[in-house]
This record gives sequence, C-alpha cells and structure tokens, in this order.
Amino acid sequence: KTHIDCIASHRVLRLPGLIDVHVHVREPGATHKEDFASATAAALAGGITLILAMPNTNPPTVDDQAFGISQKCAKQGARCDYGIFVGASSTNYNTLPQIGGKAVALKMYLNETFTTLKLDDISIWMKHFEHWPKNLPLCCHAEGTHTAAVILLSELFKRPVHICHVARKEEILVIRAAKEKGLAVTCEVAPHHLFLTADDLDNIGHQRGQVKPPLCTKEDQQALWDNLEIVDCFATDHAPHTVEEKDGAKPPPGYPGLETMLPMLLTAVNQGRLTLDDIVSRLHTNPRRIFNLPEQPDTYIEVDMESKWIIPESMKFTKSKWTPFAGKHVVGKVRRVMLRGEVAYIDGEVVLNPGFGCDIKSYKHFPSQVQSDQLQVQIPPGTYIGSAPS
Amino acid sequence: KTHIDCIASHRVLRLPGLIDVHVHVREPGATHKEDFASATAAALAGGITLILAMPNTNPPTVDDQAFGISQKCAKQGARCDYGIFVGASSTNYNTLPQIGGKAVALKMYLNETFTTLKLDDISIWMKHFEHWPKNLPLCCHAEGTHTAAVILLSELFKRPVHICHVARKEEILVIRAAKEKGLAVTCEVAPHHLFLTADDLDNIGHQRGQVKPPLCTKEDQQALWDNLEIVDCFATDHAPHTVEEKDGAKPPPGYPGLETMLPMLLTAVNQGRLTLDDIVSRLHTNPRRIFNLPEQPDTYIEVDMESKWIIPESMKFTKSKWTPFAGKHVVGKVRRVMLRGEVAYIDGEVVLNPGFGCDIKSYKHFPSQVQSDQLQVQIPPGTYIGSAPS
Ligand SMILES: [Zn+2]
Ligand SMILES: [Zn+2]
Ligand SMILES: [Zn+2]
Ligand SMILES: [Zn+2]
Ligand SMILES: [Zn+2]
Ligand SMILES: [Zn+2]
Ligand SMILES: [Zn+2]
Ligand SMILES: [Zn+2]
Repeated sequence: KTHIDCIASHRVLRLPGLIDVHVHVREPGATHKEDFASATAAALAGGITLILAMPNTNPPTVDDQAFGISQKCAKQGARCDYGIFVGASSTNYNTLPQIGGKAVALKMYLNETFTTLKLDDISIWMKHFEHWPKNLPLCCHAEGTHTAAVILLSELFKRPVHICHVARKEEILVIRAAKEKGLAVTCEVAPHHLFLTADDLDNIGHQRGQVKPPLCTKEDQQALWDNLEIVDCFATDHAPHTVEEKDGAKPPPGYPGLETMLPMLLTAVNQGRLTLDDIVSRLHTNPRRIFNLPEQPDTYIEVDMESKWIIPESMKFTKSKWTPFAGKHVVGKVRRVMLRGEVAYIDGEVVLNPGFGCDIKSYKHFPSQVQSDQLQVQIPPGTYIGSAPS
Repeated sequence: KTHIDCIASHRVLRLPGLIDVHVHVREPGATHKEDFASATAAALAGGITLILAMPNTNPPTVDDQAFGISQKCAKQGARCDYGIFVGASSTNYNTLPQIGGKAVALKMYLNETFTTLKLDDISIWMKHFEHWPKNLPLCCHAEGTHTAAVILLSELFKRPVHICHVARKEEILVIRAAKEKGLAVTCEVAPHHLFLTADDLDNIGHQRGQVKPPLCTKEDQQALWDNLEIVDCFATDHAPHTVEEKDGAKPPPGYPGLETMLPMLLTAVNQGRLTLDDIVSRLHTNPRRIFNLPEQPDTYIEVDMESKWIIPESMKFTKSKWTPFAGKHVVGKVRRVMLRGEVAYIDGEVVLNPGFGCDIKSYKHFPSQVQSDQLQVQIPPGTYIGSAPS
C-alpha cells in the first residue's frame, strides 16, 4: 500500500492525485481574474486533481441561493473535481448548517475587515463554532494572536479547527503547543511562505507582492521549516488577479499558485529539504482525513523528478499572467495526470473539458472500483524515493 | 462568619477593607500625576486598604533594580498596604521569576504598542506563561480577541490567568464560556465600564474620555451587568493624569477612580442593582483568593448607606483633578477606615501618614491576632443588607 510508485524509468514517479484545500476560483463574480475552467486547468497542470473552492466570490457563498450559483458554475466549468466552501457571515450561523450536507467545509475570515464575510467580534465566532456541525470541517483565516483565539474556541466547543496559511513563527509555535496538548487543531502552509520572504519583495515588486498573510521574515520562514512535522497540509491559497490589477494603485492581495506549487516542492525534495512522503501526506493523505474526502478512483499523477526548468514570467493556464516564483530554477515537472481513469493532462496540455469535474460531496455517484490507496504496486528495489505513508 | 456587620445605626455598615488589584501609582517617574502618598490617601478615602501597584512606571518595573526602586518609593510613601506588580517585557521572561518572591503578580500588556512593556508576539507571551511561577498570579491587559488568545495559553500551560478590565460583550462571553468549561480564568471589571458608555463621551469630553479599553456601547455595558456572576473582581484601573495632560493635544488614556468606585457601587446597591455581598466578594474575598493575599488584621471600613451627595468636578486626594463621574448623584459614603487597628480615614480626613503602609508580600511581620474574616459579629435581625460571603 503506497502512493509512490516507480514506473517506466527511475526518473518518473507516480503519486496520488494532489488535493489543494485552498483555491480562490473567482467564479462567480470576477471571471476576468479566473473561472472554474481556467482554475481547474491550472490545477491539473500542477498535478492537482481536487480543489476546494473558497467562498469569497460575488455573490459570496453565504446562503443557499449563492451556494446554488457556485455549484452551477463549478458543475459547468470544472475540469477536475472540487468541493465548495461556505462562508461565515455575522448573521448566517443559524442557516449555514442546512447547507452543511452540500458544502465541503465552513470558512471563517477573522482578519478581514471588509465584505459580507467580516465577522464583527468573537461572540459571532462563538455562534459559528456552536452551530456548524462538528463532523464538518471549519477553517479559519486567523493571523497572529487570532490563531490562539480560535484554537481556544475549538477547545471550548470541542470541535476541530483548521488554520489556513500559517505564515509566522508565533502562529506555528502556538499551533505546536496546542497539538502537543492534544487539541484538535490542524493547519496548512502556502508555498509562498515556505519559499519566499519579505526580502524577496524588491525582486517581486512591492505591489505584486501584496498577499495576506504577507511575506514574513526569514525567522518566520525558518520556523515553518523547523516545524514541518506539525504542518498538516500544503495549500496554494491560489488567489489570481490580473497583472493590471496587481500593478494598479491599490493592488489586491494574492498570488496565483496552482501551477508552481508542485515544481517548487519537488525541487525541495531534490535538494533534500523534503521527502516525497512529506508531499503526499500534506497534499493527499492529510487533506483527505481533515476534510473527509473520498478517494478519487483511478487517479494519479506522474512526475519527472529530473526535469530542470526555470519558472517563466507567467504560467500557461491561470488567467493571472504573473507569478511570484518567476525566475526560480526548479527540478521536477508534472508529466501526466490521470483523473478517474481518463488522461487529464499530458506533456503540457490539459485534455479534459469543462464539466468533467465532479463535486466531491456527490461522489457517491462515482464509486471507486479500485481504491487507488489499495493498488498493488510493483516497486523495483532501490528505484523509488520515499516509503509508504501511514 | 461575615464581612457585613451592622454597627451603631441601621444606616452605617461595616465592611472589610477593600482591595483594589489595579492601580497606577505613577511613582517612580511621574509624580506630578500621582505618587504613593497621594494614591494611598485617595485609596483610603475610597474605602480601599490595599492596592496592587502596576508596573508601567519610569523606570518600568521589569527587573530587580527597578523593582527595588518601586519598593523604596512605596515603603516611604504608602499610607495603606500595597503589593507591587512586575511587568513582562520581550526579554525578561528568564529573570522575572527570581523577583517572584517579592512581586505580588506579573502583568502582561498585550494590546499596548509602545514602551518596554510591549510584547512582540505570542511566542513571547508563551515564554512568560512557561516561566512565571504557576503559584503566582499572572494578569493580562488583553482586549477583544486577545482575551481568547491568552486564555488558550492559560489552558496550554496549565496555569491560571487573570484578565484585567473586561469591557466588551465579546470579552465577557468568551470568559464565561471558558469558566463554564472549568478553565482557570478570572477577571475584573472597572467601574467606568459598569457605569459609563461611549454615549457619555459628549458629557465627559472626548479628550478626557480617552481610556483603554475605551468606553464601549450600551450593549457591551449590559453584557457586563448580565454576566456579573462571573466577574471576580471590581478594580479601578486608577490611571491619574493632570487636567492639563488630559486637555492637551494628545490626551493620555486613563481615569482616576479610587475615591469614586465605592460610592458608585453603593449607589447601585441602593438601586437594587447590586448587593453588598457582590461588593465584598469582588473587592475583598475574590481578590484575596486570586492574588493569595493575607488578611489585613483589625482592618475594616464603615460606610453610611444613606448619605446622598453629588460627585464634584474633582476628588480631594488624588492629584488628578477631574473625574469622569462628576455630577453623578450618589447614595453611600465612606465614614471611617480602620487599618491594622489604626484609624486611617475619618469623615473626610486621611489620618495615616506616608510610611504606614506595608508590602503585603512582607506581611509575615504583621501577624493577625484575630483574622477579621473570623470575627464574631452581632447582627441585629433585619438591620443589615447582604449575607455572609462563602
Ligand atoms: Zn486567507
Ligand atoms: Zn485565501
Ligand atoms: Zn526527464
Ligand atoms: Zn489516497
Ligand atoms: Zn490596561
Ligand atoms: Zn491599567
Ligand atoms: Zn447618614
Ligand atoms: Zn476577609
């Protein structure tokens, strides 16, 4: 039972389809930035076969009607599988649980101070912790001391909480302390916080470099690496904007990331800073466990571990025609992606059409004949990197 | 066993000496605002026989040398008894515990963004929670979500925490939730948050009205009253500044409060909004328990429950010649204060001199022959208000 499977040559490895639990698709409402067709093309090109779509759309996914609109957009546009978040507002804590059966998780924005998704104060947070079903995931954008505050609520209401895009030393240390005491907290880290710091802003440009949480210090970055064992997931926080928007007077925060995450991580494997197991656990095993996600049958990706390339000024499939990783020398490339038995991506081309993607919450319609977790794989001795994930 | 004891007439009641756990004495460093002699005169006039002095002095009480200076000032100037706080800085978590035997408690400023007492981030908070002795009190200025954050640390490090000047609904509700789960959190509320709201700022003046936490909404105020049962202490947060400073361009935050707290509370008793037990538990029994304070022997106060007066523009003993309660019609007045067998205050005059006050941490030198908690009192039936505190 392994996810890491050596095929044809010693240079090409098979991994399970990756799961990105934090993607801003921008549809409905801002399809000039991105839509389900483009976002899921970018996902497949990045080895990602399942994305979880954030609710800060327009309309925001805060009620049944808006959820229906997002579902429709996703069903028509998605090339890979997806789940859809609902968003907490100051007023919807009583009605959201009714959408619970359809939504993949609840997202709470605790640091934002604008839009419908603003949560006035901690008494509103408490309402959501009280009402949202305990068996459904609850994710928080909770920077700095908010990380600790929301972990307290998790403890008081005896329900798990998932902390999005941990970026700072203080955040990862309080999560570590909570985990050591057995509290039900999980977390994700974005590639840009693993691989970039505020020192890179001169190179990236201070406008394009705007992101929340911001790029932090080298000390913060080092703390993420030092505490990698308690990082449950990697997640892109793919947040596409047009180059014009990023270069404008008030640049909106966010980076595209779907097509660059895996190459950056594979490069770290080649450098000995990560193992393939680290990638598979953070982008497949743990996301499945935390978000209660079914296995995608006959789904896997093939990566060339030795292909060297330089990340260009912009990636092929996202509409966001820039990347903060431009110019990075990487080693490792996605060769082929198989999704539910179909070739989804091969050698630079996305093959699947919009509409192929399924809502992961309706996955009963796609029973897996063979769970890919249980595939018997032939592993020629000495030719693969990594061992079976637990 | 009671603290509420009917003496001569049905109008005059005896209460135990009150303890104010949150006083900014301003000495050393700003004796034009207040000093130990003036602050403790104001305390005695307010029925307070023991004050705990905050560490944001100049020099701030963050090391052994500064603590010695504060001790010397207090010893020379104090007319009533006192305890001295030490303050957490970003660097002193290793050295502070050595002062632990002399300090009454540790104060952490989590919302201030200036001075030595600024604590950079939650990883520094964690250091203090780890190092400060578990049997010594730890108090936090922790507004809004910081309340929840610091309660998490209390839970992770398995040590009690005391939350200063709770002012908002969100704060009191998260404290209630934590207490209901049995977490080791206690809290205090200041009279100005019980009796004033932001609506009073037009009357008080927006400059003089500056205070941290600010005067809040009527809804916040109501939440404090609705949750009074989980409020452990009342505390003035007496923070004197000169009128010139308060009326200047950048008014410093803070109100004087030592001489007005008890009249305001007694008025609430007369209105039926509080009981005398509520006062005794919040200003004597609970402070003693939370801060491990010995009983002050032969110490009590006598209050006239029926004396009506109007709070003047400024009070007699504090150097801070204004009060946010000016013009309030109050019913209830301190008549006499006895401290360790001596008359300390009587009918408007402070009798004790600077130097009479003792450091409560050196109280072994003043053994109580008769614990006033255990005084047998004669209670004529029907003539007293309140019952024995538990
Ligand atoms: Zn976020
Ligand atoms: Zn995001
Ligand atoms: Zn190759
Ligand atoms: Zn799997
Ligand atoms: Zn304070
Ligand atoms: Zn204070
Ligand atoms: Zn009278
Ligand atoms: Zn007592």
